[in-house]
Parts: sequence; structure tokens; C-alpha cells
Amino acid sequence: MTKVGVLLSGCGVFDGAEIHESVLTLLSLDRAGASVVLCAPNVAQLHVVNHLTGKPAEGESRNVLVEAARIARGVIEDVSTIDARELDALILPGGFGAAKNLSNFAVSDGNFTVNADAAKLIRGMRALERPIGFICIAPVIAAKLFGAEKVEVTVGNDAGTVAAITQCGARHFECAVTDIHIDPVRKVVSTPAYMYDTRISEVAVGIDKLVRAVLDLA
Amino acid sequence: MTKVGVLLSGCGVFDGAEIHESVLTLLSLDRAGASVVLCAPNVAQLHVVNHLTGKPAEGESRNVLVEAARIARGVIEDVSTIDARELDALILPGGFGAAKNLSNFAVSDGNFTVNADAAKLIRGMRALERPIGFICIAPVIAAKLFGAEKVEVTVGNDAGTVAAITQCGARHFECAVTDIHIDPVRKVVSTPAYMYDTRISEVAVGIDKLVRAVLDLA
Repeated sequence: MTKVGVLLSGCGVFDGAEIHESVLTLLSLDRAGASVVLCAPNVAQLHVVNHLTGKPAEGESRNVLVEAARIARGVIEDVSTIDARELDALILPGGFGAAKNLSNFAVSDGNFTVNADAAKLIRGMRALERPIGFICIAPVIAAKLFGAEKVEVTVGNDAGTVAAITQCGARHFECAVTDIHIDPVRKVVSTPAYMYDTRISEVAVGIDKLVRAVLDLA
Repeated sequence: MTKVGVLLSGCGVFDGAEIHESVLTLLSLDRAGASVVLCAPNVAQLHVVNHLTGKPAEGESRNVLVEAARIARGVIEDVSTIDARELDALILPGGFGAAKNLSNFAVSDGNFTVNADAAKLIRGMRALERPIGFICIAPVIAAKLFGAEKVEVTVGNDAGTVAAITQCGARHFECAVTDIHIDPVRKVVSTPAYMYDTRISEVAVGIDKLVRAVLDLA
């Protein structure tokens, strides 16, 4: 049975892991017969966003791992405790958490950093030549960590994000929400998902293709 | 286009709406071509549970509508503003939120009450003879509101919950996670989902059947 890590970044599109993308990833993995290890960094969120108003909730603080545990139904591990050798593949759903908690891309001028524990696991997977899937905005992390080796990714067609990705040395490929881009050399698969203003059923098509491609490369 | 209300109760299995069940409901509705109106009561949660430890987070308070907005990606309405005449059908995902926020079933001795705004919408749908789907633990609400007319529901095979349901006057039918129970007279459809300790792909089968049955009755 293929063992796949799913790296979450909280719980909610505006300050954490995108919930639909995370659940659809778990659904496709389970349907494909893979076993799943959910994980997240044990750090405070950059901030908390009131998802009804879209505004930051002043004075409130939440922990990324504790909130991600909501999506995980309580079964989740601190990413710092996961060794890449345990996993056959890794997938990162999107949401602003990938750009605020797993990295600081969303609040940077393009010169951003990746959470050290997350970076260690992602680099570890790459060193072992095991496949990694990046959904939605998460490919900026691939661009940052693997830009030097000209990794290929997609975030759909968002011009600003594409510019930041190419600035890292990575190569961007435009892609529809229902499709994926595969970098067979780096074993990196990506899909735009909610980088487009789209429907959940279309996001599901792209994520299902991504999961199958990641498993095929494992 | 059939317009379906989805009544959420927060965001997270232990103190709110079950996230997988909620997302799978949205996925099935979108695939079936229905339009969706997400709603939740604008009240404080009964409590906040740390989903990593499973223990209540002392001193913390969250609002049901604000947290449900995470699953809704920000597009959600206060259930008190929804008129049953606007909707062709209504679906309630499960999670402890249905038993702690939409009702107080989880902290009662069986003699429980339903949130007034939620009850008004659910009763309104029934008065118009429009179909309602109840997932996981949510059928206890159907039992409470429609027990006098001997509504038929399933929560799988959990003995304690079955006893509470029959105490309300409702009739319980044992059911597998991948199946549904239809009460064609009351137009009530139910499926056990995570009432069983099961896999997301099996929950998805039951919820997809429930969504199709609800739409067929609309």
C-alpha cells in the first residue's frame, strides 16, 4: 500500500489549508487505496481571518497543527516528526495557509522563505526522488525550493504568481483547472484548483488527476 | 436549477459541522447541477474542542456562522434570514455541531431542543412538503421535530442514538454507511456517514446517494 503524506497548513482558505482541496485530496487517495499520513507544522498561524467578513480577527491566535486537526478528524502529526523515508509520496493542498503558514509568500515582496520543518520534509522527498504534488498556490513552495533545478509547475494563469515563480528560477506552464502539469524529471505534479474562481466539481477533477499522477510516479 | 440549502453547524467534527461530510455534500450537489445556499445559525458554539487533543479549549469562544464560513469559503448566510419558500430542498451534514449547536442532543438526557432558527427553516421545508436530507447524527433533529408523525430515519446502528430517536416517536432503520434510508411520505432521506468509524470513500458513496435521492424528491 502506497503511503502518502498530506501536508496541511491550518483549516480555512483565507488563513489555512483550503478545506475543499484538502478533503478532495483525501477522497482521491482513499479511493485509490493509498494510506495517508496527515501532518502540519506546530506553529502559530500568521493570523486568523474571520471567514464571514474576510477581515483579520484582531487579537486572536490559532495553532496551524491544532486547526489542521479539524480536517484530519484528530489524526495528524507534527511535520517535524515525519521522516521522508517513511513516505512514498507527499501532497500539499493549497489555501492561503500555504502562502502564510508553510511559507510567507503572501506577505513578501517575492523574496520569501519556507517553514523550516516543512522545507526539510519536502527537500527530503526530492532527495529520495519521490513524487510531490502541489495544489493551488502551493507550487510557489516548489518554485522556491527547487527553482535552482528549474522545476516545472502550474498555478493556472495568475500573472503575479507566475512572475514570482519564474523569479525563483522555476518554469511555469499555463493549465486549466481540470488538468495537471507533470514535471517527470523532478517528479513534481501540480494543479491550479481554486487559483481559479471555479466550482468544486471542477477542482475535484484536477485534484483526482494529480493524485493519480503522484501515485503513478511513486 | 434546483436550489438546495445546506445547513452547517460550525467547522470541525468535535464541535461543529463534520468537514468531510459537508464538502462531500457540496461536491455531490455541484456534480448534480444543483445551486447551493449555505447557511448556519449566528450563535456561539456550545464550546470549542482542540481537535488535536480532543479536549475542550477552556476560555475560548467561537461563532457557529463565522466558523462555518470556512467550509463555505466565505459565502454563507445567517439561517434566520432564509425563508423555506426560497429552497427546493435542504440538507444537514453531521458532526457534533448538529448535536451541540443546531440542537443540544449531545449534552441532554434525551429530552433535547433544536435551535429556534434552524427549527423554523426545517419545519418550513416540511410544511411545504420539500425534501430534507439528514447526515450522520443530524437525523436526531428530524426525530425531534417530526417524531409525532413517526418520521423514518437512520443513524446506522448506534444503540444509544437509536433509543433516543425512538423515544421521540420516530422510527429507526439500520443502514450501511454506503446506503441511505428514504421516508417517502415525510420526504426525509438519511445516511449514517461517520456514525460508523469508516473511510471517507465509503462516506462519499452514502452522501452521493442521499443527494441524488433528495434531488429526485424535489
